[in-house]
Amino acid sequence: MDITLSATLAANEEIERRRRAGERVLHLAFGEAGLPVHPALRERLAAAAGQNGYGPVAGAPALREAAAGYWARRNLPTDPGLVVCGPGSKPLLYGLLLAIGGDIVLPMPSWVSYAAQADLVGARPLLIPTPPGEGGVPDPEHVASAVLHARARGRDVRSLLVTLPDNPTGTLATAPTIRRIAEVARELDLMIISDEIYRDLVHDPSAGFLSPAEQAPERTVITSGLSKSLALGGWRIGVARLPSAALRDRLLAVASEIWSSPAAPVQQAAAYAYTEPPELVERIDRSRGLHGAVARAVYERFVRSGVRVDRPQGGFYLYPDFAGLDFASAAELTAHLLDRYGVGVLPGHAFGDDPAALRVRVATSLLYGETAERRLAALTAPDPLGLPWISASLDHLDEALDGLNTTRRRPRSPRPASPVPAPAAR
Amino acid sequence: MDITLSATLAANEEIERRRRAGERVLHLAFGEAGLPVHPALRERLAAAAGQNGYGPVAGAPALREAAAGYWARRNLPTDPGLVVCGPGSKPLLYGLLLAIGGDIVLPMPSWVSYAAQADLVGARPLLIPTPPGEGGVPDPEHVASAVLHARARGRDVRSLLVTLPDNPTGTLATAPTIRRIAEVARELDLMIISDEIYRDLVHDPSAGFLSPAEQAPERTVITSGLSKSLALGGWRIGVARLPSAALRDRLLAVASEIWSSPAAPVQQAAAYAYTEPPELVERIDRSRGLHGAVARAVYERFVRSGVRVDRPQGGFYLYPDFAGLDFASAAELTAHLLDRYGVGVLPGHAFGDDPAALRVRVATSLLYGETAERRLAALTAPDPLGLPWISASLDHLDEALDGLNTTRRRPRSPRPASPVPAPAAR
Repeated sequence: MDITLSATLAANEEIERRRRAGERVLHLAFGEAGLPVHPALRERLAAAAGQNGYGPVAGAPALREAAAGYWARRNLPTDPGLVVCGPGSKPLLYGLLLAIGGDIVLPMPSWVSYAAQADLVGARPLLIPTPPGEGGVPDPEHVASAVLHARARGRDVRSLLVTLPDNPTGTLATAPTIRRIAEVARELDLMIISDEIYRDLVHDPSAGFLSPAEQAPERTVITSGLSKSLALGGWRIGVARLPSAALRDRLLAVASEIWSSPAAPVQQAAAYAYTEPPELVERIDRSRGLHGAVARAVYERFVRSGVRVDRPQGGFYLYPDFAGLDFASAAELTAHLLDRYGVGVLPGHAFGDDPAALRVRVATSLLYGETAERRLAALTAPDPLGLPWISASLDHLDEALDGLNTTRRRPRSPRPASPVPAPAAR
Repeated sequence: MDITLSATLAANEEIERRRRAGERVLHLAFGEAGLPVHPALRERLAAAAGQNGYGPVAGAPALREAAAGYWARRNLPTDPGLVVCGPGSKPLLYGLLLAIGGDIVLPMPSWVSYAAQADLVGARPLLIPTPPGEGGVPDPEHVASAVLHARARGRDVRSLLVTLPDNPTGTLATAPTIRRIAEVARELDLMIISDEIYRDLVHDPSAGFLSPAEQAPERTVITSGLSKSLALGGWRIGVARLPSAALRDRLLAVASEIWSSPAAPVQQAAAYAYTEPPELVERIDRSRGLHGAVARAVYERFVRSGVRVDRPQGGFYLYPDFAGLDFASAAELTAHLLDRYGVGVLPGHAFGDDPAALRVRVATSLLYGETAERRLAALTAPDPLGLPWISASLDHLDEALDGLNTTRRRPRSPRPASPVPAPAAR
């Protein structure tokens, strides 16, 4: 088992180190929502400060009820008894790997921790490239053959994972793709883990969102949380919607031995949040608007400078492809971006992508400002892109892209293509 | 891997079910401190409600500094850089199993989650009985032969665990035993995990406390938290003191993929607690006094009715041995106590003990009262045993012990002894 700090954390530490040393670094490497806590949530937390009992492993009844209501309002009728809460959706995902057992199919690229968690529990992920323009879902047309092949070699593949909308690509798989992956999962008897933590941050709320839990309710676990929509990452609260009492019981058994429960006062504030009171709905609306506006502004910068990138549809990420520039690997490209231009992004290989492909993940949420005041201003501004600190950051990015274009265009006779088969271009 | 809800949780659910159904049940089965949050901590939590960043995986710098100071005041000079915080000491213990790897030596009996966690990570615990009257430490005289034997059969034993003072026995290993176990660990090149979460609740503060970290600093990890001393179980905060940067880095790598960090507002309150301000020192003093007084009162009841039991020295547990009564197993005894007398305790086999031995774990901390008012009254009463609800509970226990003695004395010609070798009588 390879136990080392993830590339994400190492990169973030390096960026923080440079900033402390006085370097001007554009921090596009960390998936923190970058917005303040809504006052109503601060009040609820404070009001629950006297709660110190361990409480149920599955979470406080009020929280499970509220989360069930949240899903019911999204076309997913939910039994509160099949909701399990955890200190973040990350531990829930880890617990699910143990509770389900066996190997797991992951999209390539996908969030860094999925594969790292699989490694910790001794499972081996099958990395399947995503369909063009639809990050977060292993291409349904390739899943069956990969799973059957792995099973023929004795591997016990039991689940597949989707991220809707996706980190790192910022895209959202289409309904036909979701229907197809649900069908494939049923044919192969795979559990589906659907990580929907960015669901409420799909930029265009009229775009439609199909959860595999609507297509294959008997085999789909949804995980979610408040880290992204309400920027409560540091509060550590996640929720899971289980398809059966049997899997719930196994998850609870794991949870009780690893983390017990989320912090009790946080659970009470989260219970309030999941009832979706008007002031929090408004906060999420505003946050969605800001994430979308800034992600699109960054998208336009990339497009203008000739970098291939999918238009962001949710969350606060982009996954540009710098193919054509003269770098041997994404790592070399990200190091150059940081050293030469003070732009911190993560190489695609941290997300399981081909190391030779020049794809990087860009997180745009730390552009909103470095103080609570600036972040709040960004959230309430009619034109956040006009705020001086945000427009300066966009200019910083432009400079870097111009510089790269001028100095690192690949010469006419390119080196031979990498022998590693690259996933479909995005 | 056996993934089922622990015996502890199942028993607690059964007790709660009966209480909800209106049955009068004396709840002696759950290790919750049963005391209110100190107002100063409620205030600190509320004041930190705006903190929502993920923060460092190791914990906020202020918390690491404060925890280092806590240990420094206990003869354990500590580098804050070698402190790792987690959402409870339970996840830290789990993370350590992964970070250290290999199999682990556990005392028998010991806290239910140690063996369950080992099972989850695919390690196999070596259960070694504790020396007479000294729970929490695998008998040093038996550890070497057991480990050498296991290694000869190809097992990769890398660590041993001690609990000081102990859950389930409520006793504290002596300094000579700690010195000896540290020596044995060094000879066998084993890491020592020293779970000291009840350290500040040793009833007689002048009794002396020796941590293996003082004897074998190069190989001892201490885990602790605020769940017991300040009754913050539901807040989920634990701390670990690592012996080396190498092990710290492995633990951080695991932590970053499983739980990220404790809740940020809780970390700020915990940072304050670990500075040990006078009002919290006084609160812990009072709590210690209450835990000791009630545990001793329960001890005297057992002794008076002829049950063998060690005098409690720390925390809020006793581990009586009902040898001589006519039951086939601890499970049969605990079921009878619950059904016939409404007394809920846990069978010793849940702690790894011989199922045929009639030992049970008694937790006394839920006797303080079922409302915040009663608990606070118990904490401040000059004579908590005189409070009507506490004295009624003690009477309830007396009735059960009298009844057992009258009806279930073993007949003169006893059944043959269990073929399973029992650990030393306690």
